[in-house]
Amino acid sequence: MTKIGILGGGQLGLMLIQAGIDWNLVIHCLDPDPQASCKDLCTQFTVGSLTDYDTVYQFGQAVDVLTIEIEKVNVDALEALEREGKRVYPQPSVIRQIQDKRTQKQFYRDHNLPTADFVLTQDRADVAQLVAEQPDLLPAFHKLGRDGYDGRGVQRIATAADADKAFDAPGVLEKAVDFEKELAVIVARNARGEVRTFPTVEMVFHPELNLVEYLFAPADISADVEQQAQTIAQQVANAYGIVGLLAVELFLDKQGNVLINEVAPRPHNSGHHTIRANRTSQFEQHWRAILNLPLGDTTAHGPAAMVNLLGEAGHTGPAHYEGLGTLLAMPGVSPFFYGKAQTRPGRKMGHVTVLDTSLEGLREKADLVQKSIRVVTV
Amino acid sequence: MTKIGILGGGQLGLMLIQAGIDWNLVIHCLDPDPQASCKDLCTQFTVGSLTDYDTVYQFGQAVDVLTIEIEKVNVDALEALEREGKRVYPQPSVIRQIQDKRTQKQFYRDHNLPTADFVLTQDRADVAQLVAEQPDLLPAFHKLGRDGYDGRGVQRIATAADADKAFDAPGVLEKAVDFEKELAVIVARNARGEVRTFPTVEMVFHPELNLVEYLFAPADISADVEQQAQTIAQQVANAYGIVGLLAVELFLDKQGNVLINEVAPRPHNSGHHTIRANRTSQFEQHWRAILNLPLGDTTAHGPAAMVNLLGEAGHTGPAHYEGLGTLLAMPGVSPFFYGKAQTRPGRKMGHVTVLDTSLEGLREKADLVQKSIRVVTV
Repeated sequence: MTKIGILGGGQLGLMLIQAGIDWNLVIHCLDPDPQASCKDLCTQFTVGSLTDYDTVYQFGQAVDVLTIEIEKVNVDALEALEREGKRVYPQPSVIRQIQDKRTQKQFYRDHNLPTADFVLTQDRADVAQLVAEQPDLLPAFHKLGRDGYDGRGVQRIATAADADKAFDAPGVLEKAVDFEKELAVIVARNARGEVRTFPTVEMVFHPELNLVEYLFAPADISADVEQQAQTIAQQVANAYGIVGLLAVELFLDKQGNVLINEVAPRPHNSGHHTIRANRTSQFEQHWRAILNLPLGDTTAHGPAAMVNLLGEAGHTGPAHYEGLGTLLAMPGVSPFFYGKAQTRPGRKMGHVTVLDTSLEGLREKADLVQKSIRVVTV
Repeated sequence: MTKIGILGGGQLGLMLIQAGIDWNLVIHCLDPDPQASCKDLCTQFTVGSLTDYDTVYQFGQAVDVLTIEIEKVNVDALEALEREGKRVYPQPSVIRQIQDKRTQKQFYRDHNLPTADFVLTQDRADVAQLVAEQPDLLPAFHKLGRDGYDGRGVQRIATAADADKAFDAPGVLEKAVDFEKELAVIVARNARGEVRTFPTVEMVFHPELNLVEYLFAPADISADVEQQAQTIAQQVANAYGIVGLLAVELFLDKQGNVLINEVAPRPHNSGHHTIRANRTSQFEQHWRAILNLPLGDTTAHGPAAMVNLLGEAGHTGPAHYEGLGTLLAMPGVSPFFYGKAQTRPGRKMGHVTVLDTSLEGLREKADLVQKSIRVVTV
């Protein structure tokens, strides 16, 4: 039986394992946290660093197919494993391209893929000089090249005076897009080159945390914009030649243009609703892609929303879910918890999927969900 | 955190655990088979007899809530645990009533619930005498009171000469219903008395194995019959006062009457499609019921079929799934495997859920599924 290894054992790994139960997949997980969400559910759990060469290399030796649920992994070790004939999906070269926002942005430019204007920067002084000399770049975001995650590693630079907020490390200064909406398309590609997208979703971000607060599917956009978003997602997947899932986050600007914001080569928060709302979930689709099986039908059953359950501000400690009873009594509402014992402000603790037959009913229910549940400490 | 125990670790346990991942349920499993489907996925797996008092009692001591995925369990031990304050759902008294087909049939008669005519029998001689004296009971089925399962424990008695095929043990001789269709309704009831049904399904049985071969939902029946089936299912659940799921198998006779065939106090083969086809699956509904949470919305996304994957006749040994590639390429088709290494004729190895927007398209696809996949030995 094919042994699969996942680098990372958090909630994405958890939902991958859950989907893998359908097909009795044998799954090993590596995660530095002994209390990681996957610890009891994978066939074999190893505690260890995802960024240490030897740890990743040895973990990979024991499996036939290796995948990731987080980009911050030791790519050198993955490349060594790939050279030795292991199937590593997404391919190490793709992870390397994507895990640094600098090479990611440059990739779009090199492939004529639409994205916001940017300049690569070396350090804080570089940013200060740039914004002083080219004020038309402002307002902008300074993004750390490596290791940004879940809203960390991004700074808004509104005026030249903000340049001292820039990261003093290699990064990219990106002109802020005056966007109408933020969209996302999850696309899958398998080894034989079959490509399939999920319907475009519309994301609403938390104003302070820079995390998806909730999303709606289908997105409330014109057929033309939907087409643009779907096409761009396919183009990016093909440009990378990725095998696996690629989550493509997009801006719809005020002129009706769709621009790539950033991508992630793995299952993504913007696809959690597909577990309940689509014929094939993003997690099953990832397995299909990396096991080189025919990709699944992504048709949606109907309108869906996904509300992230984030740790409440001011609460750090053992997690308690306030208002769960109300939520469970709502028709078409399904909470999903990630098994994290401790909450902290903004931590992703779970999500709630909302189904309805109309977009209006959906919005009402999603609002109610957001009002009814809070992740607090007792 | 509440610890839950499941007596039995087969495919129903597996799908219960899979649904339980949404809520991080901590689940212990007891099964006599060290290779049971659940062994790697439950929080704690114990190998042991389900019918041995001490084994069941000790297993139950370690958990807070106890449930079953098979009826053939030691009910005395469950009653002792219940007396000591453990939550045991379904209640031991209900399991006891249902695990013997004699008390099950008598229960329907006592509660004026519609069911086929029957006579309780003590042994084979009893059956021989009955059919000789009351030929109008024929054709009939002789059903073993206890321990029948998956088509075993049922004998057709067409003529008085067939009496030697009857079981020489306590049983029930039931007049064969000249039925139009076989239907099933899964109903859930929680401790606060909330009752909710799934839409009625139509089952097609394998001509020889007496196992469900495939089923369709919704059933192709009139609104009146649908109403009868739904009402009867609710009545049975309320009559038992069950906490948990109850699968109610029904006959629709040629006169348009709905009669109870038999019931099972647990998730059931006739509800597997709900994982993919309904807003709440039967497995999540079971957790909601036994944890005394509000019951979930059972609305179907659309028409669905479920095809059982049974071990092919003439094949005993390591299982191989022929035609899987074809199946995975069909839109809206999802296979589910139970992780059984060995196949044998008629063994339930997995199932396939089929979704479509029309009943016609569904039947075509279900036919194709049945033709495309076979469980064989290599």
